[in-house]
Amino acid sequence: MRKSHIGSGDADHICIRGHDLADDLLDKHDFVDVLCLAILGHFPDRRLRRMINNALVASIDHGLTPSALATRLTLHGAPESLQGAVAAGLLGAGTRFLGSAEASAHFLRTALDGVERPEALSDAELGAHAHAVVARCRAQGQKIPGLGHPIHVHADPRTERALRIAREDGYFGVHCRFALQLAAALAHALGRPMPLNAAGCKGAVLLDLGLTPEFGKGLALIGRVAGLVAHAIEERSRPLGQDLWNMASAASQAGEE
Amino acid sequence: MRKSHIGSGDADHICIRGHDLADDLLDKHDFVDVLCLAILGHFPDRRLRRMINNALVASIDHGLTPSALATRLTLHGAPESLQGAVAAGLLGAGTRFLGSAEASAHFLRTALDGVERPEALSDAELGAHAHAVVARCRAQGQKIPGLGHPIHVHADPRTERALRIAREDGYFGVHCRFALQLAAALAHALGRPMPLNAAGCKGAVLLDLGLTPEFGKGLALIGRVAGLVAHAIEERSRPLGQDLWNMASAASQAGEE
Amino acid sequence: MRKSHIGSGDADHICIRGHDLADDLLDKHDFVDVLCLAILGHFPDRRLRRMINNALVASIDHGLTPSALATRLTLHGAPESLQGAVAAGLLGAGTRFLGSAEASAHFLRTALDGVERPEALSDAELGAHAHAVVARCRAQGQKIPGLGHPIHVHADPRTERALRIAREDGYFGVHCRFALQLAAALAHALGRPMPLNAAGCKGAVLLDLGLTPEFGKGLALIGRVAGLVAHAIEERSRPLGQDLWNMASAASQAGEE
Amino acid sequence: MRKSHIGSGDADHICIRGHDLADDLLDKHDFVDVLCLAILGHFPDRRLRRMINNALVASIDHGLTPSALATRLTLHGAPESLQGAVAAGLLGAGTRFLGSAEASAHFLRTALDGVERPEALSDAELGAHAHAVVARCRAQGQKIPGLGHPIHVHADPRTERALRIAREDGYFGVHCRFALQLAAALAHALGRPMPLNAAGCKGAVLLDLGLTPEFGKGLALIGRVAGLVAHAIEERSRPLGQDLWNMASAASQAGEE
Repeated sequence: MRKSHIGSGDADHICIRGHDLADDLLDKHDFVDVLCLAILGHFPDRRLRRMINNALVASIDHGLTPSALATRLTLHGAPESLQGAVAAGLLGAGTRFLGSAEASAHFLRTALDGVERPEALSDAELGAHAHAVVARCRAQGQKIPGLGHPIHVHADPRTERALRIAREDGYFGVHCRFALQLAAALAHALGRPMPLNAAGCKGAVLLDLGLTPEFGKGLALIGRVAGLVAHAIEERSRPLGQDLWNMASAASQAGEE
Repeated sequence: MRKSHIGSGDADHICIRGHDLADDLLDKHDFVDVLCLAILGHFPDRRLRRMINNALVASIDHGLTPSALATRLTLHGAPESLQGAVAAGLLGAGTRFLGSAEASAHFLRTALDGVERPEALSDAELGAHAHAVVARCRAQGQKIPGLGHPIHVHADPRTERALRIAREDGYFGVHCRFALQLAAALAHALGRPMPLNAAGCKGAVLLDLGLTPEFGKGLALIGRVAGLVAHAIEERSRPLGQDLWNMASAASQAGEE
Repeated sequence: MRKSHIGSGDADHICIRGHDLADDLLDKHDFVDVLCLAILGHFPDRRLRRMINNALVASIDHGLTPSALATRLTLHGAPESLQGAVAAGLLGAGTRFLGSAEASAHFLRTALDGVERPEALSDAELGAHAHAVVARCRAQGQKIPGLGHPIHVHADPRTERALRIAREDGYFGVHCRFALQLAAALAHALGRPMPLNAAGCKGAVLLDLGLTPEFGKGLALIGRVAGLVAHAIEERSRPLGQDLWNMASAASQAGEE
Repeated sequence: MRKSHIGSGDADHICIRGHDLADDLLDKHDFVDVLCLAILGHFPDRRLRRMINNALVASIDHGLTPSALATRLTLHGAPESLQGAVAAGLLGAGTRFLGSAEASAHFLRTALDGVERPEALSDAELGAHAHAVVARCRAQGQKIPGLGHPIHVHADPRTERALRIAREDGYFGVHCRFALQLAAALAHALGRPMPLNAAGCKGAVLLDLGLTPEFGKGLALIGRVAGLVAHAIEERSRPLGQDLWNMASAASQAGEE
């Protein structure tokens, strides 16, 4: 069997990537430091910390989402198991809701595959490639992830902040540039604005920082668990589970055939 | 390490409790036979088959329960994972909804612990013990599981059928008898009917068949998965997830402080 | 909201597809009957019952699989939650192990898409189409699911039985026929036998019975839960969890860099 | 239905406890701030931040625990679902491994229930109460959680640091004091050292900070998810799943009857 490089533990010592938990990490490094150490194998620099914190904060809670509802309904049936309720909510973090940044990063990476030294291309050259990619996707009926927003039809404010930070922190690179060219190419093809949205931008930022799409998905899961814990704990003091059950049963009985 | 006695598998042969899956089980034994073989180590006799089928059927589906809703909401977020949606629904099968037969069986077993040869006691003697148990529980504020029903205040029709079957099949024993004495003793103490309910009866039946409470819980889980699969598959063609989300958000916004 | 057609439940009555659970189903229909009623909306005929029982039996248990190990390790950490341990095991029933019949059915369906009235084609015509499909897949480096077996290189005995049953029961149709032609075409292209395996055959059988790939996946999940319950219950009396933990830690420490 | 006070979200705005995610939280507050806001309803002060960071860091990873193994085995079977693998690992965070601080806090709270103004008692008075509690538990055969350590038989270094921090930060209160008296009383009764361990100390610290046991459990879950993400991502590049499967099968076959 291969060795796991993450860490080891016995009754006496716990090590994460070679650092002793009790002597070197606790009270000396915060959660974001050790999270990064465990997953990536090194402590984050200032700009990576900033990105990680923003990614975690952005996914904590979006209100009574399907994920939060699943946690609360599960706690209603199994009030003894906080971990079961949180796990149930986590299982809804799939391709539709918390996986879109991952999908965008995969798309960008694939679209630049085979392009030699893409970071040396000018914006015009990236734009020409983006037009070709958009044309091919449209011909094959393939959706381009990370573009368009139901409300912010011209520009998503979260995208603007994330790109501003990428420029400030010096990692605005070929993936962010290409993502913007893709948005412009699609808008041109459709004849209406199709701004780069938050998920599309997050995917580009991950790649420009040298990270993987699944690291982005991992951050979304960690952040979301904090929100699901909040819902599970609120459910104990202000239960919604029984009301949700009654509402759903009544709505189904009165529902369309 | 100990050996697992359940079975073994490689690319060539799969064995369950020593029976070859391909040669001895498939197309020769049905699901209930092999389920029983895997869990208990032997094929069921006629009366055990009947009880297992009834326990499985009874737990398949109870409408849009919290468990079914969790499955549907999870599929809405992660449509790619049928197993994730089903697992989310299963996590709500805890102490409150699908665990009550288990709790009743535990209670009955504990209440008869220390009674010597309880099966030799007359109904009057079991009744006297039941009165003592009820008195002790009431003094300690402890609820007795398996008694009472919100609608069938006099007698639960499912209990009557299960007890009739236990008598027909010859396993109506000390746990069923004691459970009925407990119901009578509690009714006497409260001055109103407190019939043995379906969960309480299921717990007694398990013990009179020589089975464990956790076997009963296991059957509830297996049966319920069939219902959750039904909800997950219906959710793909007749989705409720988005409507549930909208309803819950609107109800919370308009909700009581 | 739409109505769910599966069922409804209140404290008094539970209905599945319009049948009253207490009056019409319990002790009158067995688990396979009501499972089919809940998922498909009707009781099974004799041949569907046979197929369902065989699919359930085939997936109950394959020994100490990753799925069974996940159940046992989870119970070791959370002994209070049978449903949590079973759900953990279920989550491993993904694309790699219990999803292969589903993948084969999808492949067959897609490969016959666009072929007009495929059931009217002769074996020679289906064979010609199979050769074209194999050539296209090989050109694109796409794997064809459901073909080949590490041990039964000439013919998988489970496949032979399943096809014999399909013939006996009169539903050996275009999907089974096309699957066999695909196996022959791939064997011809590779110059070595590539028999239709159990998963490939199961996918073809599902489609010839007019069922969906996801129904097959659903049966695999239901069957597997019975095996996971067996492992969870055995883990309580013959625990392996701590030994697995020790073995894994030791193997990692001694492992390859 | 009641209102959920945690937050709300639509396509335009996401609010957490009344703070706009985009305008007020992102890039202005870090993860620990917003985690605390979501769960407790307010930002943490300096000492609460310190405690939260330490609790999160302490539970991230303890090597190839049952929880990490369940995540890796689940990913092996369902490589497409990061959330499923992480949820499987989370389900093992039950009463045995990540629930011990919660159990200790419950014990301390219950043991001081009915004591009037316990914070006004002297150490000698708390000690007398501890002796009575220990005597009662021993008479009833009840284990006292949070005491004893297999290796650090005299004093657990993590406990010493946590208590030092509690004193530095001014929240060393009646629960920490009573926990130490319990350890002394049990050691006296058994005639050998039984130091307050890390879990017992964490339970006392939670209560002295005015927090609930379930908040502690929630932090353990959030921290642990970071470690499980690390294992899931490592499993993709350095897979152990197949080796674990082989090892377990071989060990079972050679195992004791």
